[in-house]
Amino acid sequence: MSGAVRKGEFALIADVFAPLAARPEALGLLDDAGEFAALPGHDVVVTTDTLVAGVHFFAADPPGQIARKALRVNLSDLAAMGAVPRFYLLTLALPEDRGDDWLKDFATGLANDQKEFSVHLLGGDTVTTPGPLSLTITALGDVRVGAALRRSGAREGDSVYVSGTIGDAALGLATLRDGGSGLDDTRKIDDAAAKALRRRYYLPEPRTLLGPRLLGLASAAIDVSDGLAADLGHICTASGLGATVDPGGVPLSAPARSVLDAQPGLLELVLGGGDDYELLFTADPENAGAVERAGRDCGVDVTRIGAMTAGPGVTFLAADGSVMPLPRPGYVHF
Amino acid sequence: MSGAVRKGEFALIADVFAPLAARPEALGLLDDAGEFAALPGHDVVVTTDTLVAGVHFFAADPPGQIARKALRVNLSDLAAMGAVPRFYLLTLALPEDRGDDWLKDFATGLANDQKEFSVHLLGGDTVTTPGPLSLTITALGDVRVGAALRRSGAREGDSVYVSGTIGDAALGLATLRDGGSGLDDTRKIDDAAAKALRRRYYLPEPRTLLGPRLLGLASAAIDVSDGLAADLGHICTASGLGATVDPGGVPLSAPARSVLDAQPGLLELVLGGGDDYELLFTADPENAGAVERAGRDCGVDVTRIGAMTAGPGVTFLAADGSVMPLPRPGYVHF
Repeated sequence: MSGAVRKGEFALIADVFAPLAARPEALGLLDDAGEFAALPGHDVVVTTDTLVAGVHFFAADPPGQIARKALRVNLSDLAAMGAVPRFYLLTLALPEDRGDDWLKDFATGLANDQKEFSVHLLGGDTVTTPGPLSLTITALGDVRVGAALRRSGAREGDSVYVSGTIGDAALGLATLRDGGSGLDDTRKIDDAAAKALRRRYYLPEPRTLLGPRLLGLASAAIDVSDGLAADLGHICTASGLGATVDPGGVPLSAPARSVLDAQPGLLELVLGGGDDYELLFTADPENAGAVERAGRDCGVDVTRIGAMTAGPGVTFLAADGSVMPLPRPGYVHF
Repeated sequence: MSGAVRKGEFALIADVFAPLAARPEALGLLDDAGEFAALPGHDVVVTTDTLVAGVHFFAADPPGQIARKALRVNLSDLAAMGAVPRFYLLTLALPEDRGDDWLKDFATGLANDQKEFSVHLLGGDTVTTPGPLSLTITALGDVRVGAALRRSGAREGDSVYVSGTIGDAALGLATLRDGGSGLDDTRKIDDAAAKALRRRYYLPEPRTLLGPRLLGLASAAIDVSDGLAADLGHICTASGLGATVDPGGVPLSAPARSVLDAQPGLLELVLGGGDDYELLFTADPENAGAVERAGRDCGVDVTRIGAMTAGPGVTFLAADGSVMPLPRPGYVHF
């Protein structure tokens, strides 16, 4: 850990982050870099994402929650490749007004998720910024050589699956925004539902068990960060195919279902919004039973929502044969 | 590459960064992560640094120069571990006012340095920020298992060496700052010298050849980013020793020498300032010949500036026996 930090802060940073970096590969955060051995027969998979206050989270959000979300969105990227997460690096650009307590709570959040996901801090950098708080996490994982899931592997006729439920985070975020969402009035969502939905926005559940479990089963995979429609579009483009999805078959949580029952127009936000961090993947119909078992073994529902077609593009085709216009793409950032 | 970017910018980002990611390991920047195989018998070494406009560089600096500096400070960290650089990831938080030309020039700078240092873009993330431009680079390299240079390996009696020249960047930065540096008046530095010194601040020369060449020769190493005094202090602390350095033996460039001849008081800035990105390392005196050859083979001077002692701490001891007070630590960021 080094960088332009407030005088005297080196000691605190070392104090709060050192316990997160207890693995020998982190070299006690005392050196210029971390060092680790790749597992035999495995490739290293590496991904990085930046989150900025006022763009990806609210500046006043609890620091532990900010930390965990930043880590989790990166773990979700590894899961989409079928990689098992092992390490992460963290860079933190801190405004002057973030005090010691903030930093401690931030580290506590990371400590919780390190246990939950069996990952370890390998290194990082802390700097001050005159701008908003921002943080970058780089996550490293392992996958068997040649086995990684790609966006490009889907075949015509493959089933399209999604894990968990879709739309909660986008609906939750919408309830947090000032004014309307440009869609139906999300302020009508009742408090209990809003709270449950927001929780999914604040703290995604990366499918770190399911992703590696899909190696050899899924033909293509991505995590839903830009929105179901956009991310399925990424698989279609990479695979040179199209996809047809029944919007009525997209799995919804109970709160999301209650919201859509009252305001059906919000379906567009569910299908187009982002931040779900569920796995969206394709698989040969022959693998249907194995896919279902994989989900059950990992404690997460997997739902078939459509099929890959000659394409191009994503089509939302209702059971009654009507075609729904494509939702606007995600990025419902505030 | 993904994230909250301006509408329609995905295409441009793909266009400008895709040529930097031509290696198969980057998966065409089309997937959620990059994937690579560690070299047999080697560990993976990974480091990350964030640079913020107004803290680590000037917002109006040429974009290619910002890009190259960000990459180079990370390559310098790998060099300090003795690792050969292979890949990097880039996250870019862009203010709205940065246009397409800025992004293209930024990518051109990276393309130049990719060739110069044989590294390749493996992945990244681009987001918008309401704050200053900031960027994070994570660099990955290889080092033979068990051979990495550490800060903690110095032994009493080892010689202390530094590559290249020290203080140019700190003097160059001082000439860029409004008002005095709190030391002698750096505005008296003549234009030609100032230009040469600033160049070292803008564009460090990471010692990517020398670092790996020192494996088996150096007992400890670090790169000089916080300042010679502070970074030697890091080696001392990690090794549980002290060090004595002859300030008159610290290698200076011709422009720095001319500045110090006119204003000897600036020696404190030379020894305490940072951003040199030279290698500071220790070696058994028996290795003196081999260390000299290593420098020659890599086209960079290596100069013995002192020796490791029982300590503790760093002492600047002049040839006439006088002890110079420790310079204030680095971080002469503006």
